[in-house]
Amino acid sequence: MIGVFDSGLGGLTALREIVRLLPGRDIVYFGDTGRVPYGTRSSETIVRYALQDMRFLCTQAVDVVLAACGTVSSTALHVLRSTFPLPIIGVVEGAAQAAAHATKNRRVGVIATGATVSSGAFVQAIKSIDPQIDVTSVACPMLVPLVENGYIADDDPVTALVLDDYLSAIRAAGVDTLILGCTHFPILTGAIARALPDVTLINSGAEAAKLLAAQVPPKQADEEGRVRYFVSDSVPGFARVASIFLGEPVEDEVTRIDIERF
Amino acid sequence: MIGVFDSGLGGLTALREIVRLLPGRDIVYFGDTGRVPYGTRSSETIVRYALQDMRFLCTQAVDVVLAACGTVSSTALHVLRSTFPLPIIGVVEGAAQAAAHATKNRRVGVIATGATVSSGAFVQAIKSIDPQIDVTSVACPMLVPLVENGYIADDDPVTALVLDDYLSAIRAAGVDTLILGCTHFPILTGAIARALPDVTLINSGAEAAKLLAAQVPPKQADEEGRVRYFVSDSVPGFARVASIFLGEPVEDEVTRIDIERF
Repeated sequence: MIGVFDSGLGGLTALREIVRLLPGRDIVYFGDTGRVPYGTRSSETIVRYALQDMRFLCTQAVDVVLAACGTVSSTALHVLRSTFPLPIIGVVEGAAQAAAHATKNRRVGVIATGATVSSGAFVQAIKSIDPQIDVTSVACPMLVPLVENGYIADDDPVTALVLDDYLSAIRAAGVDTLILGCTHFPILTGAIARALPDVTLINSGAEAAKLLAAQVPPKQADEEGRVRYFVSDSVPGFARVASIFLGEPVEDEVTRIDIERF
Repeated sequence: MIGVFDSGLGGLTALREIVRLLPGRDIVYFGDTGRVPYGTRSSETIVRYALQDMRFLCTQAVDVVLAACGTVSSTALHVLRSTFPLPIIGVVEGAAQAAAHATKNRRVGVIATGATVSSGAFVQAIKSIDPQIDVTSVACPMLVPLVENGYIADDDPVTALVLDDYLSAIRAAGVDTLILGCTHFPILTGAIARALPDVTLINSGAEAAKLLAAQVPPKQADEEGRVRYFVSDSVPGFARVASIFLGEPVEDEVTRIDIERF
């Protein structure tokens, strides 16, 4: 069983890629919709929440887990890995590899939540591959609420104005490659591409899905491509927002759990 | 002891008014910074969180409580009042009275979180005072993240663009009075006044503070005007954001608690 979790529904952009790469596998997804967002909270709180998320997934007999949340991946992954005896993949490593491979001028940008940028995890991962790469990181805390409130059209004027401000340092640094370091951000790919037309965009959730596909245990005979969703807020409303991230309607089972008990 | 709580730090706009009206009183404030915001969550989750918030305040020997959160006041107040045997004041009643008193053309607007607008609490409270008043309510989910991320200047272009969209229905309805139904919104008074120059703005937190002042027990001899702050996320960062809402630096005691245990 493949486990995927996120602070909320942004991780569904990674789930979408897993389903594409590994058709027919059974997957369990947990979105902490009762406590989203994580990226504006302290690392202490993020670690506490991520431990609860993992403890819940472990009740679902998962063999491998994708922490499909940039904030958890950059802030809590070492704690999760030292606590749980199963492979846990984050979204930092794959994106760092893809960016180091894609950049021609050795200038890479990273946009992510405040907590992720503060952690320095993407910078460290890229430098460990090639210390000569110059990395410019910018915290973009407004992008998560913009996505969640539907300001997602390629030409949305509010999103364009916010991006113009956030991306000025990225533009000034002359990067040719930009990591979307939060799994909400691929929803804004069109708007970001308009703001940075000649820059290669790296989808960190999709890169993590590729790493997962490479190390997932073989498909079991009884797997039937079933995706089960668990959320910590009530279920109504989930399907509407989830369909934005998945790009198609959600027809699978959705269950509310009390994450504070884990 | 006066207790005040909010989903996060917006309730500090009400606390500021309590301190002004009731100088020298001891106050305990709880802000659920580890789970903010409430206004985008389901009523079921909001009620669960509000019960935990109240259970914590009850450990602090409070005599009276102000639920300084528009979302809690409109969604969970009846549950809180039937659960805890002490006076609990919300932000709906005072604002409804002030708006009914202020309007000349009997057209009142309400801007608030999605959960508050869905509850219909402000409409019901205004209609119970004067059924002839026409009420136009608009959910403004982006205003909380805008405030929390510092887009608070009177002429901020992002906030102006978002407000222009949200306030079009309020303008079309021809209201002469607008309730700021979320305690974050008074921080945007300047920007809202620019967008609606001839409309009277009602600060729901400040109106609730007036109701509280009218029914608070007499000052005890040992009260010394001490304000203690409790938050559910880590303490660093609290002082910076809190000073935006309070309009002055925070020099009092701040303690982190684990709200999930209550």
